[in-house]
Amino acid sequence: MSVRVAVAGASGYAGGELLRLLLAHPGAEIGALTGNTNAGQRLGSLQPHLLPLAERVLEPTTADVLAGHDVVFLALPHGQSAAVAEQLGEEVLVIDMGADFRLEDAADWEAFYGSPHAGTWPYGMPELPGARAALEGSRRVAVPGCYPTAVSLALFPAYAAGLAEPEAVIVAASGTSGAGKAAKPHLLGSEVMGSMSPYGVGGGHRHTPEMIQNLSAAAGGRVSVSFTPTLAPMPRGILATCTAKARPGVTAASLRAAYEKAFADEPFVHLLPEGQWPTTAAVLGSNAVQVQVAYDAAAGRIIVISVIDNLTKGTAGGAVQSMNIALGLDETTGLTTIGVAP
Amino acid sequence: MSVRVAVAGASGYAGGELLRLLLAHPGAEIGALTGNTNAGQRLGSLQPHLLPLAERVLEPTTADVLAGHDVVFLALPHGQSAAVAEQLGEEVLVIDMGADFRLEDAADWEAFYGSPHAGTWPYGMPELPGARAALEGSRRVAVPGCYPTAVSLALFPAYAAGLAEPEAVIVAASGTSGAGKAAKPHLLGSEVMGSMSPYGVGGGHRHTPEMIQNLSAAAGGRVSVSFTPTLAPMPRGILATCTAKARPGVTAASLRAAYEKAFADEPFVHLLPEGQWPTTAAVLGSNAVQVQVAYDAAAGRIIVISVIDNLTKGTAGGAVQSMNIALGLDETTGLTTIGVAP
Amino acid sequence: MSVRVAVAGASGYAGGELLRLLLAHPGAEIGALTGNTNAGQRLGSLQPHLLPLAERVLEPTTADVLAGHDVVFLALPHGQSAAVAEQLGEEVLVIDMGADFRLEDAADWEAFYGSPHAGTWPYGMPELPGARAALEGSRRVAVPGCYPTAVSLALFPAYAAGLAEPEAVIVAASGTSGAGKAAKPHLLGSEVMGSMSPYGVGGGHRHTPEMIQNLSAAAGGRVSVSFTPTLAPMPRGILATCTAKARPGVTAASLRAAYEKAFADEPFVHLLPEGQWPTTAAVLGSNAVQVQVAYDAAAGRIIVISVIDNLTKGTAGGAVQSMNIALGLDETTGLTTIGVAP
Amino acid sequence: MSVRVAVAGASGYAGGELLRLLLAHPGAEIGALTGNTNAGQRLGSLQPHLLPLAERVLEPTTADVLAGHDVVFLALPHGQSAAVAEQLGEEVLVIDMGADFRLEDAADWEAFYGSPHAGTWPYGMPELPGARAALEGSRRVAVPGCYPTAVSLALFPAYAAGLAEPEAVIVAASGTSGAGKAAKPHLLGSEVMGSMSPYGVGGGHRHTPEMIQNLSAAAGGRVSVSFTPTLAPMPRGILATCTAKARPGVTAASLRAAYEKAFADEPFVHLLPEGQWPTTAAVLGSNAVQVQVAYDAAAGRIIVISVIDNLTKGTAGGAVQSMNIALGLDETTGLTTIGVAP
Repeated sequence: MSVRVAVAGASGYAGGELLRLLLAHPGAEIGALTGNTNAGQRLGSLQPHLLPLAERVLEPTTADVLAGHDVVFLALPHGQSAAVAEQLGEEVLVIDMGADFRLEDAADWEAFYGSPHAGTWPYGMPELPGARAALEGSRRVAVPGCYPTAVSLALFPAYAAGLAEPEAVIVAASGTSGAGKAAKPHLLGSEVMGSMSPYGVGGGHRHTPEMIQNLSAAAGGRVSVSFTPTLAPMPRGILATCTAKARPGVTAASLRAAYEKAFADEPFVHLLPEGQWPTTAAVLGSNAVQVQVAYDAAAGRIIVISVIDNLTKGTAGGAVQSMNIALGLDETTGLTTIGVAP
Repeated sequence: MSVRVAVAGASGYAGGELLRLLLAHPGAEIGALTGNTNAGQRLGSLQPHLLPLAERVLEPTTADVLAGHDVVFLALPHGQSAAVAEQLGEEVLVIDMGADFRLEDAADWEAFYGSPHAGTWPYGMPELPGARAALEGSRRVAVPGCYPTAVSLALFPAYAAGLAEPEAVIVAASGTSGAGKAAKPHLLGSEVMGSMSPYGVGGGHRHTPEMIQNLSAAAGGRVSVSFTPTLAPMPRGILATCTAKARPGVTAASLRAAYEKAFADEPFVHLLPEGQWPTTAAVLGSNAVQVQVAYDAAAGRIIVISVIDNLTKGTAGGAVQSMNIALGLDETTGLTTIGVAP
Repeated sequence: MSVRVAVAGASGYAGGELLRLLLAHPGAEIGALTGNTNAGQRLGSLQPHLLPLAERVLEPTTADVLAGHDVVFLALPHGQSAAVAEQLGEEVLVIDMGADFRLEDAADWEAFYGSPHAGTWPYGMPELPGARAALEGSRRVAVPGCYPTAVSLALFPAYAAGLAEPEAVIVAASGTSGAGKAAKPHLLGSEVMGSMSPYGVGGGHRHTPEMIQNLSAAAGGRVSVSFTPTLAPMPRGILATCTAKARPGVTAASLRAAYEKAFADEPFVHLLPEGQWPTTAAVLGSNAVQVQVAYDAAAGRIIVISVIDNLTKGTAGGAVQSMNIALGLDETTGLTTIGVAP
Repeated sequence: MSVRVAVAGASGYAGGELLRLLLAHPGAEIGALTGNTNAGQRLGSLQPHLLPLAERVLEPTTADVLAGHDVVFLALPHGQSAAVAEQLGEEVLVIDMGADFRLEDAADWEAFYGSPHAGTWPYGMPELPGARAALEGSRRVAVPGCYPTAVSLALFPAYAAGLAEPEAVIVAASGTSGAGKAAKPHLLGSEVMGSMSPYGVGGGHRHTPEMIQNLSAAAGGRVSVSFTPTLAPMPRGILATCTAKARPGVTAASLRAAYEKAFADEPFVHLLPEGQWPTTAAVLGSNAVQVQVAYDAAAGRIIVISVIDNLTKGTAGGAVQSMNIALGLDETTGLTTIGVAP
C-alpha cells in the first residue's frame, strides 16, 4: 500500500524535515509540494540536503494543488491551517504541524494567539494516556509543539502516578531551528553561536497552555507550569529540565518504577540506565526521546530530563508517527530511534 | 603603586583568564607563574592568546617560587590550596580561586568534597550584603564558584527583600571552559558541539551548598536549592534561570523595585531595561552581570535570569575585583563591563 | 540474503557511524562488536545514539570473536589491521577502514607512517576509473581516507580529461570527528568551538600520498599536491577547495562538461547547478558528495569545491558502498544521498 | 590630549567593535553615534555588550550630527562614504571602514563594485612597506578589508624578498560577522552552525583586487591571485592559507629569515615559533596577527598561514591603529595583542 502525500509549506524547516522522513517511508509517495513566497523555486535551492527532490518545483498552496492526495501535511504559519483544511475532503488525512488545533480551551487559544479558535483535533502524542485510540482512523491530527513534546513525555508519568505536586517548573534549551527559517537579526549565526539567551520568560511562551493541558490531563487536576525557554547555540535539539515538588512518600525507587512502567512498551521513549544522562546529540535526526529521572531528597523535588530532536520527534517525526497510526500502519514505519552522532 | 603578583596554576583556563586581566591591570606586575605537569614549558605554547607572556616559562609550584610576592593567586585543583597557603606569610594577600575556603560549614564541605575542611576565608562576592567590608584589608580571599556567582547575584535581592519562598529551583547552562582544560572524552569538541546535556542532577553538584549558604544568609533562614547544571555548546558563559515561588503580595513592580535598589550602586551588576533579556554573548570577557526579572502571575513565581562570563566574573574577574578591594584600590581597576560581541 | 557482519573497533567514531549505517542496511546482520580498552562495556554508554544496540557488550578484538562472520570491518588504529586480517579466512570479506592497505608504493607508506608496508588491497573508491571492477567479488577492501575521498572525487575528472596542470593546491576544512575520539587537549570543545586552525602544513599530512596516487592515476602522470588541512568548529563534514592551473584552451564550458560527464551515472556524486555552492550541512549523515566547479579566467585556475560527511562517504559510508559492490548487492543499499539539515 | 570621535554606522558589527575599542582608548572621547534605519534607538538594545553606552541614542547620519568632531569613522555600506566625507572639513580625520577609497585603479573599482570610483586615500595597513609614512598626519584613511589584511600581511614578506612566484593561491575561512548584521537566510544560526561553505568562488570576491594591489606592490610586478573565501561556523576570526610556488633556491631557512626580518619591529604581527600553528581563537578581540610559514619541498610551494580577528585587526582595530598614526599617538594606544580565549 502506498499513500500519496502532499506537503504545504515545504520550504521551511518543518517541511524539510518531513520530506526527509517521507523519502525514507516505504508507504509514502511524495506528491505536491507547496510554498508561499517560494512558489516557483526549485526545492534543490531551498533544501539542498534533499537531493532526490532537487528538481521539484514548489507550487502555490491552493486547494487545486493539494487535491487528489490521501494525506496532506500542513506546515504553515500559525492561524493559516483552518482555511486550507476546510477545502480538503473529510476522507483526506490532514495533519496540522502548526498550533491551530492543539488546544482544547478556546480561551487559552485566544489569550496566547490573539485570534479566534479554529477548533480541536485529535492530539498527535500517542504516548499520552488514551491518545493512541483517538488517533486510530482519525482523518485530522494536531501535531504537538516541540517543547510540549519534550516536557509532557518527561512529566506525565510522574503526574499520572500521583508522585508530583501540581506546580511544575520547567527550563528548556532549544536549538535555533525551532525559531524557524525566517531571517531575523537575533537568529543570525553571529548572534547565536557562543551564546545562550532566554525568551518568552514569565509565562508568555505559547507552548505553556499546551503543557498545562497535557499535564493536567495526566494529573487529573490543574497543574500550573512555570516555563522558561532558552535558545542554545546548536541547530537542533531540545533539552528539557522538568521539576516538581515530590508528594510525600516518594522515593527514588518509586519514581523510577513509575517511569519504567510508563515507557515499557513505547517504541520511541527510552528511559536511560541509572547514572547515564541524556544528550541532545544522541537523538539528532531520530524520533527517540531519551529520559532520565532523579529524586533530590534534600530539595524534595523530582527532576526529569528529556531530550528530543525538535524537528523530528518534536515536529515532523511526531507527525509521521501519528500518520502511521491514523492509517493503520506500524507506528514506527519510516522512523528510527538511531541518532546521527557525533 | 604596583603590587607583585604570582599565579599558581597558570596553564589552566582560570589561570589564563587571570593573566589576561592582570596584563591589563595598571597596578599589577606579573611575577612567578607556576604549573604542575606543565612546569618547564613556554607559556606561549599553553596560552597562545597571551602574546606578551609567550616567552615566560612555567616554574614548579613551590614555596620558594611563590615567595617575594605581594599577592598570590591559587588556581589549583580542589584540596590543594591549604597546603600552599600555609607556606605563604600572613602579610601576603592569598586569593584562592578553588573551592577550599568557600564553605562555612565543615559538614557541607566533607559531604560534597569527601576530605577534611580547610577553613573559611572572607568570601569574594562583594555585592552580597556585608561582603565588601569583610574583604577590605583582608589577606585571605575565597573566590566564589562560577555558578554560585550567577545564581547568588540573581536571587539574593529577592530573598533579602522577603519576596521569595525559601525553595529555589535553578537551571543553569555553562560553557565548557567551566569543566576545565583536562582532556576528557565527553568534553571533546565532537561531543559538545551541537549538544546540550545535564550533569550533577539531583543535588549532587558541589556548588549547591555554596548557593544555599549565600541565599540563606540573604533570606535570614534556610533556603533549599534544587540546582541542575547543563553543559552548553559554547566555550564561555553562564545563563542561570533562577526561580522561586513568590510570597503573597508580590507584584511585578515590587519585584523590579527590589532589584533596582539592590543593584543601584553596583559597578558590575546591571539590571536590564524591561523587555530586554540577557545573552551570554554580551558579557563575554567582561566582569559584568546582566540580570532581568519577571513575575509570572499565572504560576505565582519569580523568575530571575542572570548571565556572566564564567571565567571572568565567575572566576578570574571576581578574583581581581576582590584583590582590588583587599588592597584598597578602586574596585573596578583593570576590569570592564564591556563584552566582546558578536 | 543476509550477511553476518563483525565490527572491530566499535567504540570509536568510525565504528559508531558504521553501525548506524549497518542498522539501516537490509542485508546485514550485526554480529560481534569488539573494542580494545572498552571491551566489557555496554555500547549504550559509548554510543548512546545507537539505541537498538544499547545492551550489546563489547568483546575483545580476537580471532575467536571475529570468526564466523561473512564480513569483518576493521576500524582500528593505523598499523593494526594486517595482524587481524591474517587471522581471517580468505573467503571472509575484510574491509579495512584504516590506512594500512591504501598505498601502492611501500616507500610512501614507510615515509609517512614509519613502519613496514603491509600491502595493497583493492581501493574502495568506486567512482575512480576502473575501481568498481576491482571491487566486484573482492574479499579485501581498503577504504580511502576522508580527505582523499573529498579531494580525489573533486579533481579526478579534471585530470582525467586533461584540463589541469599537474600541480594541485588543496586546502580542506574538516570537522573534529576526523581527529577521532581519543581525548587530547587541543580537541576539547573549549579549544575548537569558535576557532579554525591548520595542522600538518607543508606536506606532512598522511593523506597526501594517497591523493597523489589517485590524481596521478587519473592524469596518467605524476601530479604534485600541496595539501593544507584545517580543523573547523563542527563535528562532521569536509569542505575541500581544490585548485589547479588550467591547461591552455580550457573554458568554463569545457570544464563543466567534463564534470557532467564524469558524474553522470554516479549515484552518490552530484554536480550542483551552476551558481549553487555546496555546504557541508547538506551532506550530514549522507553518503553524497556535492561538487561545484569554477574557472577563474583572471587567475587561469580551475577551482573545484566538494563537500562530504567525513564519517559517512569519507569513512563508513564508503566502506558500506564497497561492501555492497564486493558482495554483488546494489551499490546504494543501506545508503542515502539525503542529509540531515539544518 | 583627547580627541572627539564620531562613529557613523554605530549599530553594525564594525561600528560596535570600533566602539568597544574606543571605550578603552585613553585619548578618545566618544561623540556622536549615528545609524540609518536604527536612528532613534537606544544603543543598549542594539549593542548590549557596550554597557557604558547603553543609554546613548543613535542619531541620523547627517553633516550636522557629524560636525564638531576631530575624528569621524565611517562604517557605512559600500558606496556611501564619499558623499558623507565631502561634507566634513579637510582638517577632520576621516577614517573610512568601507571599501570606497581602498583601490588605486578606478577600473578595478568599477569592475568589482559597478559604480564610479570615489578616489584613493592613504591605505591603513601600516605594516606594508611605506604605508606608515603615508598615514602620518593624514586626514583621510582607507581601512583595508578583512581578508586583504590577513592575506597581505601573510604574503608581502615573501614577495618583497623575491621568494615567491607571482601566482598566489589563497583559501580563507571567515567567521560570520564578516558578512554583517543584515538578516539573510543563509546567515541564520541554523544554517551556519555545523557547516562550512564557500562563496564568491572563481575570482568574484571584491577583496581580490585589493590583495592583488598589495602583493603586486610588494613584488614590484603583477601578482595574480586565486582567492576562495569560505564561511566558517564561528562568529569571528579569519584563517588565511596563502600559498605560492617558491622561486628557485628558496629554503625553509631563507623563508623563515625573511619573515623574521619583516615582522621584527611590528607591534601587532607575530611570527610563531617553529612547530606552532596559529588558531583564530588566540586572536579573538585582539589586534594581533599570528603567522606561521612552511616550505613544502615536495610540492615546491611556500605556505603561509595567518590568523586575525576580522572585526579587530581586520576592521576596527586596524582603523584605530591608523588613527593613532595619523594623530601622532603611539601606534598601539588602546589596542592589545592579547586575545580572549578559550
